[in-house]
Amino acid sequence: MKVGILGATGYTGQELLRILGNHPEAEIVYLGSSSSAGKDISEIYPHLVNRQMVLEDESVPDLDVLFMALPHGLASAKAGELLNRGIKIIDLGADFRLQDAAVYQEWYKTEPADQKILQKAVYGLPELYRNDLYGQNLIANPGCYPTAALLALVPLVRADLLLTDSIIIDAKSGVSGAGRGVNLSVHYSEVNENIKAYGVGQHRHTPEIEQQLSKAASREIMVNFTPHLVPMTRGILATIYAQVKPGIGEEVLREMWREAYETEPFIHVLPEGVWPQTKYAYGSNHVFLQLKLDKRTRRVILVSALDNLVKGASGQAVQNMNILFDLPETVGLELNGLWP
Amino acid sequence: MKVGILGATGYTGQELLRILGNHPEAEIVYLGSSSSAGKDISEIYPHLVNRQMVLEDESVPDLDVLFMALPHGLASAKAGELLNRGIKIIDLGADFRLQDAAVYQEWYKTEPADQKILQKAVYGLPELYRNDLYGQNLIANPGCYPTAALLALVPLVRADLLLTDSIIIDAKSGVSGAGRGVNLSVHYSEVNENIKAYGVGQHRHTPEIEQQLSKAASREIMVNFTPHLVPMTRGILATIYAQVKPGIGEEVLREMWREAYETEPFIHVLPEGVWPQTKYAYGSNHVFLQLKLDKRTRRVILVSALDNLVKGASGQAVQNMNILFDLPETVGLELNGLWP
Amino acid sequence: MKVGILGATGYTGQELLRILGNHPEAEIVYLGSSSSAGKDISEIYPHLVNRQMVLEDESVPDLDVLFMALPHGLASAKAGELLNRGIKIIDLGADFRLQDAAVYQEWYKTEPADQKILQKAVYGLPELYRNDLYGQNLIANPGCYPTAALLALVPLVRADLLLTDSIIIDAKSGVSGAGRGVNLSVHYSEVNENIKAYGVGQHRHTPEIEQQLSKAASREIMVNFTPHLVPMTRGILATIYAQVKPGIGEEVLREMWREAYETEPFIHVLPEGVWPQTKYAYGSNHVFLQLKLDKRTRRVILVSALDNLVKGASGQAVQNMNILFDLPETVGLELNGLWP
Amino acid sequence: MKVGILGATGYTGQELLRILGNHPEAEIVYLGSSSSAGKDISEIYPHLVNRQMVLEDESVPDLDVLFMALPHGLASAKAGELLNRGIKIIDLGADFRLQDAAVYQEWYKTEPADQKILQKAVYGLPELYRNDLYGQNLIANPGCYPTAALLALVPLVRADLLLTDSIIIDAKSGVSGAGRGVNLSVHYSEVNENIKAYGVGQHRHTPEIEQQLSKAASREIMVNFTPHLVPMTRGILATIYAQVKPGIGEEVLREMWREAYETEPFIHVLPEGVWPQTKYAYGSNHVFLQLKLDKRTRRVILVSALDNLVKGASGQAVQNMNILFDLPETVGLELNGLWP
Repeated sequence: MKVGILGATGYTGQELLRILGNHPEAEIVYLGSSSSAGKDISEIYPHLVNRQMVLEDESVPDLDVLFMALPHGLASAKAGELLNRGIKIIDLGADFRLQDAAVYQEWYKTEPADQKILQKAVYGLPELYRNDLYGQNLIANPGCYPTAALLALVPLVRADLLLTDSIIIDAKSGVSGAGRGVNLSVHYSEVNENIKAYGVGQHRHTPEIEQQLSKAASREIMVNFTPHLVPMTRGILATIYAQVKPGIGEEVLREMWREAYETEPFIHVLPEGVWPQTKYAYGSNHVFLQLKLDKRTRRVILVSALDNLVKGASGQAVQNMNILFDLPETVGLELNGLWP
Repeated sequence: MKVGILGATGYTGQELLRILGNHPEAEIVYLGSSSSAGKDISEIYPHLVNRQMVLEDESVPDLDVLFMALPHGLASAKAGELLNRGIKIIDLGADFRLQDAAVYQEWYKTEPADQKILQKAVYGLPELYRNDLYGQNLIANPGCYPTAALLALVPLVRADLLLTDSIIIDAKSGVSGAGRGVNLSVHYSEVNENIKAYGVGQHRHTPEIEQQLSKAASREIMVNFTPHLVPMTRGILATIYAQVKPGIGEEVLREMWREAYETEPFIHVLPEGVWPQTKYAYGSNHVFLQLKLDKRTRRVILVSALDNLVKGASGQAVQNMNILFDLPETVGLELNGLWP
Repeated sequence: MKVGILGATGYTGQELLRILGNHPEAEIVYLGSSSSAGKDISEIYPHLVNRQMVLEDESVPDLDVLFMALPHGLASAKAGELLNRGIKIIDLGADFRLQDAAVYQEWYKTEPADQKILQKAVYGLPELYRNDLYGQNLIANPGCYPTAALLALVPLVRADLLLTDSIIIDAKSGVSGAGRGVNLSVHYSEVNENIKAYGVGQHRHTPEIEQQLSKAASREIMVNFTPHLVPMTRGILATIYAQVKPGIGEEVLREMWREAYETEPFIHVLPEGVWPQTKYAYGSNHVFLQLKLDKRTRRVILVSALDNLVKGASGQAVQNMNILFDLPETVGLELNGLWP
Repeated sequence: MKVGILGATGYTGQELLRILGNHPEAEIVYLGSSSSAGKDISEIYPHLVNRQMVLEDESVPDLDVLFMALPHGLASAKAGELLNRGIKIIDLGADFRLQDAAVYQEWYKTEPADQKILQKAVYGLPELYRNDLYGQNLIANPGCYPTAALLALVPLVRADLLLTDSIIIDAKSGVSGAGRGVNLSVHYSEVNENIKAYGVGQHRHTPEIEQQLSKAASREIMVNFTPHLVPMTRGILATIYAQVKPGIGEEVLREMWREAYETEPFIHVLPEGVWPQTKYAYGSNHVFLQLKLDKRTRRVILVSALDNLVKGASGQAVQNMNILFDLPETVGLELNGLWP
């Protein structure tokens, strides 16, 4: 399987390299970078000292599959030509995640992807939409926050157990989610020993979450989603609140999760009373879930934890690749997280 | 003013020392410690090398005011005798925070304080209950989370702007809130690069928040309160969600805060669009507030940030002391937070 | 290959589990723990939720190889019987690292291992002593600091390029090196935003370093070694100073490293001017080296970086296992470090 | 006392604001900034929300004293005119620290200050050169690393107790020492969980240290100085190695420190066996010292700890101001460090 990465020098690009370096079926034959063509990847990332490989420009050679890890707006411009050449695409950006072009334009303030290409895109969250993914050519790899939120919510929304106008997602992310670009909001001295909310009421992952929840509920759902920046490098914790329908008890909610995930290799409903910690997933593709129904308020609190660069980005992308090429989903993704 | 601290070697005890060391009217004449009597405080805290003072046992000498920074259940046993001796008490623990002894027993699983003493206790959150504090002898210094939650919520609840069954408080705290005791949950290697929720649905600050909100609303209010442990030493950020009553716009909410706090030296409603960061309050008694009304869901998001050891504990205790002794509230508390 | 781990619940024990879980030839059949027998490993480490396996007591079954990750003094008591049963031992503790029992007793204040067993032990630093390791039955896996120091120093000492009474090792370690035990010196609030030296002049890795340097020089060498505790979880950086012999230039020193390590898969002399960072090795078995000769003082500064739990402990142990069983040394250890 | 700050928006500039805000004699009447003139300081630093003051351009009004916190090369261009106007200058930059203009040019690759002005500059390390400072008009405030190194070394070098060609300074600094400018080397995700050496053999504080040591020894001294970047915001720890002259014991060394510092309010020789931690000095002007003589190697290990932004910059600058204006040195600097 000939694999390429476009945008190889960003955090998700190099994380793909790390993961695929442990994948027995994938041969990386192309690393593309607009800014660093001609350099060796190990010049930019010395931890890859033993993985010497020269970065090329953005002219993509023939490949079986290309991972695109680009700022939004760039993948949609290139995808048509690549698909025509028979290259499968797994896009880690946002260009193909929103089916409604108008919603895309409203939240991203950029030209949406061409409608014909957009229609070919499939939202690549395997545990929720596996059957839609087989044989596809263009995968929209989900955002990190939506992955954390949807894995917790969708089984319960599909089963119609929640009051769907009551959903609140309070999410906490490590700094690597902001990418490698430099600015004051990722300056160590300003982030360390500090926590803040950001993008309150206007984060772009909001419509992505709402699109999938609405699909699961078969009616329009709006949520409140508030991301926070936490002084750590990796990890997302989503704490989710929703009103439970009358008569539904905690065990029913838990059972719905069990049904959805009992055979899933990466999704783990923890034993009762054990709450997810982002570090459980550090460097791995695993997701950890727990819930509790507060009987006093009839609100359920759902918590999910994952590594934003793995299940929230590059690991999930490799999982999607495995599906596209009929490999077991866990190939290259077997490792447990790093502890401590 | 002769001042003593009982429980001087805990984090809030020694923080009182730091703050009172900069207070022109307070003379610290007694440091009590059950575990370290006979040692010099600088043996336990070498950063206090220039503040040599021997720790005594728990026999409290005659004082104008005693700060009690003890595990819950201990202050209530000692308070009666001390009050009889004419010593004013500012208790940083939980023993006198809940007016309803049954509620205390339910959440703390300990014998509540004697009802006669409990009735003398006043909840010491000056910006909300200043007039109740003058001339008092027993102050229940609020919990760190309740301080963060109540300063954001009470002005809006008093003005009846929120649907009171819709309140959710998602709070994030630094590790120092857990105290100096050693156990795996404060082990550096287990906390660093990690975030988790804890005490979900059962944290003891829940009834404290509910008691004060219920008082503000003149009816019983129940909330969801979820604390999280963040890899940082100091700071609390509370992100609060509530449904707004029909017809109420963002400006009305903001105006209510402004009215409540415009002359307050420690409470700051930030300019629109500037969101609180816990580090703004690092080492200071200041609190930072911001809000946004999501018009789509009619939910307001309130955020407050403070230092859990200062406004969340020892700084607020000194502010209360200033009130009890008719000093300007800012005496000894003028400093800005440390940045970066 | 049937593998067991005694002391499976410590940090190096569970790190062995993580690494061996990715090893195609190793089958873990025994996890021993004095404190947690009967529990499932995933109760203690929920990140291992998909690796359910019950911890047993310290009765070791028949195995091909046993990793011992025990507090010092315990392995030496058990080793004789296990060796007699034909079980190869890789000991991650200190019991067999010092050949001179009197030196052991002086620094560890404990009874040394039985001399007959001690003589069978081989110091398992493959890049320096590979040929001594083939066919052995008892490997003393090196300490984390000695690994960092010796890999930098030994090639230069063997070639007699340094004034051997001039060696100073200033090392910086993450907190996981202190293990999982709880005490104030690993309390998050006391370690975060803080750095200190510890064990100045008396750290037990000093004689271990000296023993190997003396062997390399064929005369007795004494060094100054000062470890520091850094607010991070993993990683060791050793900054080493030594006077260079007259006439020796920087290129000669660098050349000696190249000769020693050019075919080594885990040891990387970085391009000139690129200085090692501990994070380059995060979660991997790789070691990064750089040096500079200060012409003004004729002192060379050597820097090495590694992950204390991998090349400094469990990764090196697996590398040693690979050698004992005639496998390529990189099996199970191919992964690059985690970035960022 | 009318005080101004030029370069008020850098980390040392705003730290001056924090400290001077607690100084009873200083009235801040001017904040100058080339980049942010016209803005309010609280727009840039919201934690100063209660300290509203508009930033002006670089036209300095009449003042008693001006703190200059500028990139190197800028202060020397402005100093002459300001001195002529009778404004005392305390320069926090490097322009006046090196008496030898050629050495300045070699290490800073910039035009040195005018020789006539340079001759007026006095090196402002009060505990070592207090008598030189009274009545002066131009103070070169020392670098952060030199302050840490010189306070440990100078008393011993003056007393001729060390072999002066044997001095090695291995220093560890928090990230705030790099300033507020954004680049990859201060990106949170690249600094967190990481430590590295930098500027090996070529850091500009080397000649500053050597100049003062040479002065203390009355002969030329060269040292090795290696700085490291530690994942923390504030603090410098210097670990210093030197060969001790024959016959000199540990007690003599310690006694020399005691003599030098026993009446100093900010310099603390810790009790034997208690080693400095940078956090002891967090946010304060205090310095902590400890030493140990290794009898085996006859090398003494000296450790000093301070806050790089306080005693290493703005606190020391205020201490110097106090001296220039005949105030007690501790005015405005009484606070202990923040713990935890």
